Amino acid sequence: MAKSAARQPVPARRADAERNIAAILEAGTRLLSADPTASVADIAKAAGVGRVTLYGHFPSREALVDAVLDHAVEVADAVLADDSLDTVPAPEAMARLLRSSWEVLDRHRRLFLAADRVLATERIREHHERPLRRVERLIVRGQRAGEFRTDLPPGWLVTTFFSIIHSAAQEREAGRLAPEEVEQVLTKTMLSLLARP
Amino acid sequence: MAKSAARQPVPARRADAERNIAAILEAGTRLLSADPTASVADIAKAAGVGRVTLYGHFPSREALVDAVLDHAVEVADAVLADDSLDTVPAPEAMARLLRSSWEVLDRHRRLFLAADRVLATERIREHHERPLRRVERLIVRGQRAGEFRTDLPPGWLVTTFFSIIHSAAQEREAGRLAPEEVEQVLTKTMLSLLARP
Repeated sequence: MAKSAARQPVPARRADAERNIAAILEAGTRLLSADPTASVADIAKAAGVGRVTLYGHFPSREALVDAVLDHAVEVADAVLADDSLDTVPAPEAMARLLRSSWEVLDRHRRLFLAADRVLATERIREHHERPLRRVERLIVRGQRAGEFRTDLPPGWLVTTFFSIIHSAAQEREAGRLAPEEVEQVLTKTMLSLLARP
Repeated sequence: MAKSAARQPVPARRADAERNIAAILEAGTRLLSADPTASVADIAKAAGVGRVTLYGHFPSREALVDAVLDHAVEVADAVLADDSLDTVPAPEAMARLLRSSWEVLDRHRRLFLAADRVLATERIREHHERPLRRVERLIVRGQRAGEFRTDLPPGWLVTTFFSIIHSAAQEREAGRLAPEEVEQVLTKTMLSLLARP
């Protein structure tokens, strides 16, 4: 590129930056979902940007993984949007939400493991705020309808959803749960937890 | 110290090293359980050793936190040893094991958070191998006696114990669970999960 960035007009530079960031996040999601140890250099190469450009946007591997996780959860949250969940009984809606959540988490479980290595669990949870709001709405609806237990706070039941589905990803990756058994194990576990005692 | 390490006979040097390591692990457990961001320099000072000595044994903060966690779990595991658990019904034994596990985890929850920031969950779990064997023995006994469900694999039920008790530590630290409610929340959660459907 003969033209230096400094000579471009400001809107063009901003559009370049946005394109680069989008390419980095897309490549980061793809590479880290295949291999949680994928390097910053590999991600820059796959995104078609230089390492200096990448580090200009994301100053460390931790910052990059943090942004990639946020991006992947945002995309995943759009997949989970399903208005028909509001019209079926809460236990059935929970089974369906668990299944769709697991499908998307399973595809990205290595990205989640990459995040687990460099980010605190509390931070990973912050990135899941939007999908966890879906879980909370459903749990509160089930509690109001008398379909779910009310002797445990809804916030704690949301936490168990987050914690159990991510544990399943760890178990699946460590080979302690077979791919074909995860969905049934998760459904049984979560519905037992939510059932009225 | 006027006497150089090189002039000491080998057994004396080894005894010095062992004393230093023990002091570092003890100080690390104490400081990180109070503040998960405690620095390597603070831990060296509290242990009465120089930073060079500390880095000689633990080349990075990650290696130090890893060793401190291993040490703390070893001490905790000794506290959990209670032969009387083998003679009461499995659900009662589970409630008692949860309570004693929570007591010790709650005391060290900030050390666990320090570990969570720098170690993968899989590694943290490896350090808990011994206490988790206690949990597994109890779950298998309850399954054989018909007191616990058998439609979920014991290994997965052990994982839920590990995951739920550590989630409670996160929730407690984030102020989302009150200290006085944790024990009851944990007992209800785990016993619902283990009950025959």
